[in-house]
Formats: sequence, C-alpha cells, structure tokens
Amino acid sequence: MNILILGGGGFIGGFVAKNKIKNNHNVTIVDIKDTKDWYQVHSEANNIVQDASKYEPMDDIFKEGNFDEVYNFACNMGGIGFCELNQFDCGLSIEINTTTAKLAVKYRPKKIFYSSSACVYNETKQTSADSAALKESDAWPAQPDLLYGLEKLFSERLYYYLGKEHGIDVRIARFHNVYGPLGTFEGGREKAPAAAIRKVLEAQKSGNHRVNMWGDGLQTRSFMYIDDCVIGVNRLMESDFTDPINLGSDELISIKGLHDMAADFAGIKVEYDYDLTAPQGVRGRNSDNTLIKQVLGWAPSIPLKVGMEKTFNWIAEQMKDR
Amino acid sequence: MNILILGGGGFIGGFVAKNKIKNNHNVTIVDIKDTKDWYQVHSEANNIVQDASKYEPMDDIFKEGNFDEVYNFACNMGGIGFCELNQFDCGLSIEINTTTAKLAVKYRPKKIFYSSSACVYNETKQTSADSAALKESDAWPAQPDLLYGLEKLFSERLYYYLGKEHGIDVRIARFHNVYGPLGTFEGGREKAPAAAIRKVLEAQKSGNHRVNMWGDGLQTRSFMYIDDCVIGVNRLMESDFTDPINLGSDELISIKGLHDMAADFAGIKVEYDYDLTAPQGVRGRNSDNTLIKQVLGWAPSIPLKVGMEKTFNWIAEQMKDR
Repeated sequence: MNILILGGGGFIGGFVAKNKIKNNHNVTIVDIKDTKDWYQVHSEANNIVQDASKYEPMDDIFKEGNFDEVYNFACNMGGIGFCELNQFDCGLSIEINTTTAKLAVKYRPKKIFYSSSACVYNETKQTSADSAALKESDAWPAQPDLLYGLEKLFSERLYYYLGKEHGIDVRIARFHNVYGPLGTFEGGREKAPAAAIRKVLEAQKSGNHRVNMWGDGLQTRSFMYIDDCVIGVNRLMESDFTDPINLGSDELISIKGLHDMAADFAGIKVEYDYDLTAPQGVRGRNSDNTLIKQVLGWAPSIPLKVGMEKTFNWIAEQMKDR
Repeated sequence: MNILILGGGGFIGGFVAKNKIKNNHNVTIVDIKDTKDWYQVHSEANNIVQDASKYEPMDDIFKEGNFDEVYNFACNMGGIGFCELNQFDCGLSIEINTTTAKLAVKYRPKKIFYSSSACVYNETKQTSADSAALKESDAWPAQPDLLYGLEKLFSERLYYYLGKEHGIDVRIARFHNVYGPLGTFEGGREKAPAAAIRKVLEAQKSGNHRVNMWGDGLQTRSFMYIDDCVIGVNRLMESDFTDPINLGSDELISIKGLHDMAADFAGIKVEYDYDLTAPQGVRGRNSDNTLIKQVLGWAPSIPLKVGMEKTFNWIAEQMKDR
C-alpha cells in the first residue's frame, strides 16, 4: 500500500513508519523538522520536510502519492511543561488537521488515522490520584485542562464528520503517554518517563542524589510503551471501529514511583526536591481499556518496568559520553 | 482608526462596517464572496474579495492596513438547516480564526473582536422550551449540539490564549440569533425570523395560507435586532472586558409565535403543516443578560415586534415584484 505518515519524523510516527516499511509498504513521511532533527530517518521511505498545515504543497504530495492510508501524528506538543506554557501554539495544530481533512475529501484515501490524546478528558474526572480510569464517554461533557486537549477533541469531531458527511473511513485513538527509546529526554518537550530517567542519570553521574520533582510526586498516570502503541494503531486500522478509542496502558503509577523505578535501574537511592509550582496537569489519569478489549480483543500489555528498563538503557547510552 | 472587518460582506459585518464608516474610521472589508453577493457594499470602504483563511494574501492585507482594530465576523454558517447538514464545512471556519490570530501576533492590532455564538452552550441545558436562560458559565462543561458551536468554543479559548500569551487585547461576544433587514431570507442559509416572514409572504401571495413549519413550533429562542448587535459590539470594544459575554436579546418566543407575528404583519391567518423531521436544534434557548448589564450597563432592548416589523417590511419590498 501507499502510506503517508504525517509527523513521521517524530517519536510515534517514526516507529509506525519503521513498522510499515518492515511490512513492505511504500511509505512517504512528512515532517516540519529538518531531517537532522527527525527521531528516526528511514532511508527506505520518501522523506519530505514540509509543514503539513500548508495546503498547496500538501496537495502536491497527496496528488503524487495516491495514498491508500494516511496517518496523522503531526502536532505541536510536548510534556506537561510545554503544553501548559504554550497553549496558543498547541491550539494552532488544528491547521494540520483541517488541511489533511480537506485533502482527504479531495484525494479519498481508503483510511485515515487521527492521533487524539487522553488530554481530551474532562479535568473534573481527574482530580484525585486514584480517580477512576477514564472510559471513552468521559470526554463529554467536555472540560479538558489544556487547549491542547480541546484541540484534539474538536479534531475528533471534525474527523467524525469527515467520515459521516464525506465517506472517508476514519480511525481515532486517544493515546495515553507513549514512551520508549528514541524519544525526547531533554530540552523541555520530554515527558515524565524520560525526564525521570534523565534526572536520575544526572544525579548518578554528579553524585548529588537530590532530584528535582514537579509537584509532590503523588500525581498518577499510566504510560504505554511504544511497541504496544504501534500494535494498537495497526489493529485499530484493521478493525472497522470508527469512534474514538483509548489506546493506553492501564498500569497506574505515581510520578514519584516512576522516578523511584528509574533510580532502581541506576542502582542509587535518590531524595526529592519537590517543586510544587511546576506544571503538573491533572491529579490522576488512567486508561479504562474495556472498550479496546471488546473491539480489538487486545489491549496494551507490556509492563511499565520492562519498557522503562529499555528506555533507561537507551537514554543512559545517549548520555554516557557527557 | 484603521479598521479591518472580516466577513464584512455578510449580514452583521456589513452593518458594523456601515457604523464604522459613519464614525469616520478608515475601513477595510475582506469577504470571500464576490462583491455582487455582499449584503451591503460600502463605496467608502476598501473592499477586498479574499478567503480570510489564506495566510499569505491576508498577511499582505495586514501589512498594508496597519490596523488598530480587527473585527472577525467571517465564518461558514447559516440557520439550523445549514449548520446541521454541513457540520464539516462549519468546522473548517476555524481556519479563518487561526490565520487571523497568527496575523494578530505578527502585526499587533490594538484590539481584536471575535464573534462567537450561543451555539457554544451545552445542549443538555437547553432541552425544554422553558429552559433557564443561559449564563456565560453554562458553556462549560461543554456539549454543543453542533460542530459549529464546538468550533466557536475552541476559538474562544484560542483567542483567550492569544490575549494571555501574546498580549493582544481580545473581545469575545456570543451572538444570539441576529436578524434584521438586509439579511438572508431564502436559499437555505436564512434563519428563523426571515424564514417565517418569507413563508408568510409566500402564503399571502399564493392565497394558500398553509405554512410549513420546522418542528412542532413550540421550540423557543430569543432574537436580537441588528441595531442592538452593532451597539453591543461597539460598547464591548470600548470596555475592558476580555472574557466571552452574551450579546443577545432575552425576549423569549416560540418559533410558532414568531410565525404568528409575521402573519399578523401580513394581516392573514395561517395554518401550519408541521415537519417534525426538519432540523430544529436545541429545544429552548435564551440569553441571560446579567453579566452584560453589569459589565456594560446596557443590554439589547429593541422589542422583537419592532425589529420584526422592520424586517417584514424590507423582505416584503424585496419580494413584491415576484
């Protein structure tokens, strides 16, 4: 098949591209970043540096590509620090989604995948560390804590009507905190697992085992290893399910527990300096996987400890010569 | 002042433009329609036919215009019939708002007005004909019945962060059903007041006094006469209030009552054929004007009967030679 991957220079898109290439598909990747900044560069793909929100150049790419499937992973995002402090820029990602939707109407790929986020969920359902896991219907009525989440929620509805009014076959997954090797671990856009590992590795190297922690560390999340994410995306595309669906692990952990796990891998004991003014997002968030098990007969299952150890080893390797 | 009016070829934008010209401002109007389709063409303005969602041509217009104030009335909309059946297209209006917001960041007009809508409100608060009037906080948690409303709600938040993160002085009004002379009264995009008047005038002319009504006619709304709308926009711009605010009449009427009023003006008695499958939107909607009275010391006050009679006379004039 001819496959277009928007944001394929990023973390998740890069892994999906790798998987598609392995399965002998003809892959075109579009990403706004210079290829030197792509998380992975696959020489077998057609790699294009382009802002996916620009209609005319994307029209040319769609026209030439004759795509069977389009995967839209492109957006302006990062961890909670980035998303809280750059609400406006996160909101502007909508332009990628409108451009892609309009071109889908014009060029009619067989299927289109839209990557939504657990950030769509109503913040009032996530106010305690042991809040009930979020089921898909908990997005409505809507009150996301970030414009990032409201943008995703609006785009979900836009893609729903892309399906309903224009007959495009749409798949929508709400990703919950995807992590793994080859992800961002420094610079301000990294997410909690990679940030925890980096901080612990820095503590190990410096010998100063005091680690800065955002918040009191008791806030909770679940984290999905990238391999589960790629499998889930593929299974969802092969299904006939067109409504938004959770794609995340339901293994809950506190942010402090996540740091402690990284410290265990490093073989050190750390003490925490709690920064209670740092961005923390909602208090507790987990994925209810009832629906995905029903629909796909499958759910993410890679234990956090397994995925975190692989991620730890990769980040340690990146940082070893510093 | 140098003033830019997006959607100034449309109904509300045309009246705001007229008011600004009357007050000796230097007005530039941008509208996607050919000028022959503009609701009003003001020869004193700089009239530009342009899709306001396109960044590059709009960049040129902003650069040359050196605007003090920007009024964003441009969107793809109509009455309930259009909005229910064209959800995807209504959603795409977001592109106008992102383009305008990005250019506001770049060219920094002193103030920007964004026209939101009562369609942002949660549909579960509008399920009966005598639902309580909607106060501003009733938009959240969110569950608009139309993508049109969700797009407006997302844009309100985007413009909020345009203010907060980029220091642009933003004004946001939630319009409730604006009507008056020079508005659409046929073709599928007309709203209830004009549709009721046209149907009654057609019945009068044909002698067949049976009138088609969407729904059972007991659904309720409030309607704001265009003159109140223009005054409200001006007063809001002169205020320092930056949160979304209702701009609408709180004089509630049923859709059947609206038709009966038109029949009274025509001097005929009509009977109704109720089309219960036609689009009707929410069951009941009214504007709570507590906040606008507090903030502006003013609220829309032109009686529906006064505005409807003027509108009736104008539509009757348009239709008299058919």
